[in-house]
Amino acid sequence: MPADYLVPLLRSDVTTKIVLLVMDGLGGLPVEPGGLTCLEAAATPSMDRLAAEGALGRTVPIRPGVTPGSGPAHLALFGYDPLQFLVGRGVMEALGIGMRVSPGDVAARGNFCTLDAQGRISDRRAGRISSEEAKPIVESLQSIKLEGAKAEVRHVKEYRFALVLRGAGLKGEIEDTDPQVSGAAPLPAVARNSASRKAARLFNQWTAKAQRILAKQARANGLTLRGFGSDPKLPKYQDAYGLRAACVAVYPMYRGVSQLVGMDVIQFNGEAPADEFAAASSIWADNDFVFIHVKKTDSMGEDGNFAGKVKVIESVDQALPALLALKPDVIAITGDHCTPVPMRSHSWHPVPLLLWSAKNAFADEHKKFGESNCAKGGLGTLPATDLMPLLLAHAGRLEKFGA
Amino acid sequence: MPADYLVPLLRSDVTTKIVLLVMDGLGGLPVEPGGLTCLEAAATPSMDRLAAEGALGRTVPIRPGVTPGSGPAHLALFGYDPLQFLVGRGVMEALGIGMRVSPGDVAARGNFCTLDAQGRISDRRAGRISSEEAKPIVESLQSIKLEGAKAEVRHVKEYRFALVLRGAGLKGEIEDTDPQVSGAAPLPAVARNSASRKAARLFNQWTAKAQRILAKQARANGLTLRGFGSDPKLPKYQDAYGLRAACVAVYPMYRGVSQLVGMDVIQFNGEAPADEFAAASSIWADNDFVFIHVKKTDSMGEDGNFAGKVKVIESVDQALPALLALKPDVIAITGDHCTPVPMRSHSWHPVPLLLWSAKNAFADEHKKFGESNCAKGGLGTLPATDLMPLLLAHAGRLEKFGA
Repeated sequence: MPADYLVPLLRSDVTTKIVLLVMDGLGGLPVEPGGLTCLEAAATPSMDRLAAEGALGRTVPIRPGVTPGSGPAHLALFGYDPLQFLVGRGVMEALGIGMRVSPGDVAARGNFCTLDAQGRISDRRAGRISSEEAKPIVESLQSIKLEGAKAEVRHVKEYRFALVLRGAGLKGEIEDTDPQVSGAAPLPAVARNSASRKAARLFNQWTAKAQRILAKQARANGLTLRGFGSDPKLPKYQDAYGLRAACVAVYPMYRGVSQLVGMDVIQFNGEAPADEFAAASSIWADNDFVFIHVKKTDSMGEDGNFAGKVKVIESVDQALPALLALKPDVIAITGDHCTPVPMRSHSWHPVPLLLWSAKNAFADEHKKFGESNCAKGGLGTLPATDLMPLLLAHAGRLEKFGA
Repeated sequence: MPADYLVPLLRSDVTTKIVLLVMDGLGGLPVEPGGLTCLEAAATPSMDRLAAEGALGRTVPIRPGVTPGSGPAHLALFGYDPLQFLVGRGVMEALGIGMRVSPGDVAARGNFCTLDAQGRISDRRAGRISSEEAKPIVESLQSIKLEGAKAEVRHVKEYRFALVLRGAGLKGEIEDTDPQVSGAAPLPAVARNSASRKAARLFNQWTAKAQRILAKQARANGLTLRGFGSDPKLPKYQDAYGLRAACVAVYPMYRGVSQLVGMDVIQFNGEAPADEFAAASSIWADNDFVFIHVKKTDSMGEDGNFAGKVKVIESVDQALPALLALKPDVIAITGDHCTPVPMRSHSWHPVPLLLWSAKNAFADEHKKFGESNCAKGGLGTLPATDLMPLLLAHAGRLEKFGA
């Protein structure tokens, strides 16, 4: 369990509802010294009202100084320490493009590379071929058949693809086939233990067949596989927290990670915050916990688009009354990590957190949701994995520990 | 040891004195949004002077979001992580009513229940019989004799009692006899290992004899036993911290937990803070560390009595000069947990902490002891188990770590 001391404390007689609203890459930095961040510059009257009634703080996604990817950052928000609950890169990559990784499957990340006449790698990224060029090459590999397993391959981006072998009881403790240097031939897939031998053999079979198909390519005439992994068998929300949980997200990766922790992934139309809140409303009665994910804050941060990020935050705030009308007992609004506009990338900075509760909140003095106020907020600066216990506590879902 | 990295650093050539003054359930919430807490509303000139000269902060008793019982919360203040140093519920229950649990003894919590004609439980709490009704029933069980052990049984509250078997080398790793459901008969006490078999047999013997005595009762005609446990053999203050420590407390539970960590429990007359400070004065010369416990702050919080809790805090403040006249080198004033008046119960919120030191305190800007200032205080928000190392440090009782 992510926090196993909680399990004996879980109450089954409580019907309170919790919302976790994540704006991806929410936190940021000012562009000019002394200036405002996007969140501070945005007009957010609804969030500010929640801030005034609730408390602010900050979360540290992985460890201080560590910049997280969105997968691990979400695991942390869900209460699973990413250093303890390891999810293979291949699994994350597959989930990120909407491929399923079920128990018994093994997923891997694939790279096209350029091989010389002796079969040695001359370019580990196949000259960084474009997505347009790579996509049909990946499609040409979809016809590969294996004995005792099904192979599913999909293009990711540029020279990258994802490969999932589906079979019975396959295990993915397998060494990368990427030798990490030019001038060496791709390595065979070698199992780290006997349980993974069958999968390693199948990956080698698949690679050999793919090699023959790729032979006619000029640049992408070879491939390597990395980050082999299986379903990490994470404890599920129902068991860890006693919560029936649902995920409302547009992007595949967030849907995939939510599925790994046992959330029910909701199908809905539209992509706007208002559409997501309508989806939350449609499944409200059947769930105790609703995770809602907004992606565009992160995209705007990565594009270095200050005004764009402000606008996304404001669009969430404008739609928020529809969510609040559902009368959640507890709502947390936060990010999974920071994506500061001046950095145009994810960062390690602590992430702004707003915690509102219909009951028993320790309201601090801050009345506007923003990085500077969060740094002084009444919740303090917490590991992201502490958020779930706090949400459960405010929702009255935990018994007292000891007498 | 609770913090074993400290042991090699302990100085034996220091004679400084430390006071830990705990007002039970001290922390709270305002009754009205934007209002003051009891601690903030109370007139506390002496504490405020200490706050001005010292620093404020907050402690997290167990883990964020976890509401502690007073037993585990005190263990944490004493530096023993309650998730690591487990004290059985039976032991806590026995200590709470002033029964001793010595090495070799086994303690259990007992419930009266109602059995039907087939010996199956029809009411797990014997119709929640009153204390008045239950007390003489418990007394009727005091005559039970066992071979090879002495049984001591005492009433706790309503349908609950505590049972301690005293013998040679008894071990308490025994399954509950409460089947947790109505319609099933009480289970026999089953040992989890061979060392606990003797005690399990004795508990079954005691239960059989008790059953015969209870047969004539209408509602309390059966019993179950839970939370079996022995002396947890906690490291003692002298070994863990190099401190001769004394406990000044009125209520049995706090005296019991203090005894578990090797404190000398002081006998004294009276119950008021002034009486407790006089008791501290009487043993001042012979101790390095004095723990003083004030109970009524918690009781008033549980009663939802705002004015009453304010008054208890003020009575402590008024008596405080007598304690300060002893010239402690370091004094911490805090609670074991919060008991907010609007909740009428313990809560998970971080606990206000005031740390004053005659020397080397980092004084923050806050001049009044209260929750909002503590949330912004110079000590930050710390696990409660960090308090003891800080007290030792301020008292000059720790050597440098490494060169």
